[in-house]
Amino acid sequence: MVFHTEVPLRTVNRTHWLDVTSQVEFVLKKSNALNGICLVSSQHTTAGLTINENADPDVQRDFFWKLNSVFPQDVSFAHREGNSDSHIKASLVGFSVQVPVVNGELKLGTWQSVYFCEFDGPRNRIITVSFVGD
Amino acid sequence: MVFHTEVPLRTVNRTHWLDVTSQVEFVLKKSNALNGICLVSSQHTTAGLTINENADPDVQRDFFWKLNSVFPQDVSFAHREGNSDSHIKASLVGFSVQVPVVNGELKLGTWQSVYFCEFDGPRNRIITVSFVGD
Amino acid sequence: MVFHTEVPLRTVNRTHWLDVTSQVEFVLKKSNALNGICLVSSQHTTAGLTINENADPDVQRDFFWKLNSVFPQDVSFAHREGNSDSHIKASLVGFSVQVPVVNGELKLGTWQSVYFCEFDGPRNRIITVSFVGD
Repeated sequence: MVFHTEVPLRTVNRTHWLDVTSQVEFVLKKSNALNGICLVSSQHTTAGLTINENADPDVQRDFFWKLNSVFPQDVSFAHREGNSDSHIKASLVGFSVQVPVVNGELKLGTWQSVYFCEFDGPRNRIITVSFVGD
Repeated sequence: MVFHTEVPLRTVNRTHWLDVTSQVEFVLKKSNALNGICLVSSQHTTAGLTINENADPDVQRDFFWKLNSVFPQDVSFAHREGNSDSHIKASLVGFSVQVPVVNGELKLGTWQSVYFCEFDGPRNRIITVSFVGD
Repeated sequence: MVFHTEVPLRTVNRTHWLDVTSQVEFVLKKSNALNGICLVSSQHTTAGLTINENADPDVQRDFFWKLNSVFPQDVSFAHREGNSDSHIKASLVGFSVQVPVVNGELKLGTWQSVYFCEFDGPRNRIITVSFVGD
């Protein structure tokens, strides 16, 4: 079985994580995906996807505080839109995550969630949930 | 359907992005891939693959300017070949990208292209275009 | 064919690479995987997976020396567990690698190995080897 489903998102700050785990799981359930690989991808260039801890919100705070200090919105960038830092962070974090699907469930660890990483919001965004398997 | 096709590349500077989108699309078309997941991977250790903006070349300029300033070709590195910075950048950007294939087309955003990220060129390189799906 | 196999690991330092290539190849052989895509994923939030050079151990030394200097175990982090740097590094390196499987073999370059990246060890860890293809 192969399918692709688009999911619209709304991000609310310039940089933040949006937990999309339940949306991805909803798509898998609805499509009766059983065993395979789920690819969650972004069709944007200033936002990415990652996995990280869902328990303590300070992990997210520290992530953006540190990333913004190493890759600040630098005035020396040539790109006139002023979001080169967002493009760089998106390439480092990556534009997709891949998660095993086992018996219809995303195989995530206890503390893992799938996050849309907004690096240049707030914006309307779209992710694609793809599945290949049985 | 499953297939793997190698595509040879020639990079021209120590660090730059090479847009490989049209080569990947050519392989998909020729193989009649319809719906599934495309994996573009590199078999090297000082180059990676990413997705990013294809409109303003300043995005690429800023990307390498910043990455080289955070991870310079440091004389303190132990590795005698003098390209430890390239190994580090390749692991951060990653050695593959995954893109949904929908009705025979790569599902990329309007501003997205698939880039081979050379971090230690110029060199002859090879990427592998793999497909799993229908 | 689709399968998922868990492989337990034991890491021995706070930060290091553990070469898991032979374990992944063992799983593929035992399952008679022939052609497809292999996803090696981690279900943790302070460790990742990457590919890099397997010849000179100084590459690994330089990787962690530099990454720890750019993303140190900073006392300014809010997360009380004191491992925010590990969460950040894991998201940058990524939680999975994807490798083409060609005629039953992982399609890796001459100098490539698949590494489990421990950023907050020593710990008992688990990776999942998934395969989709023929």
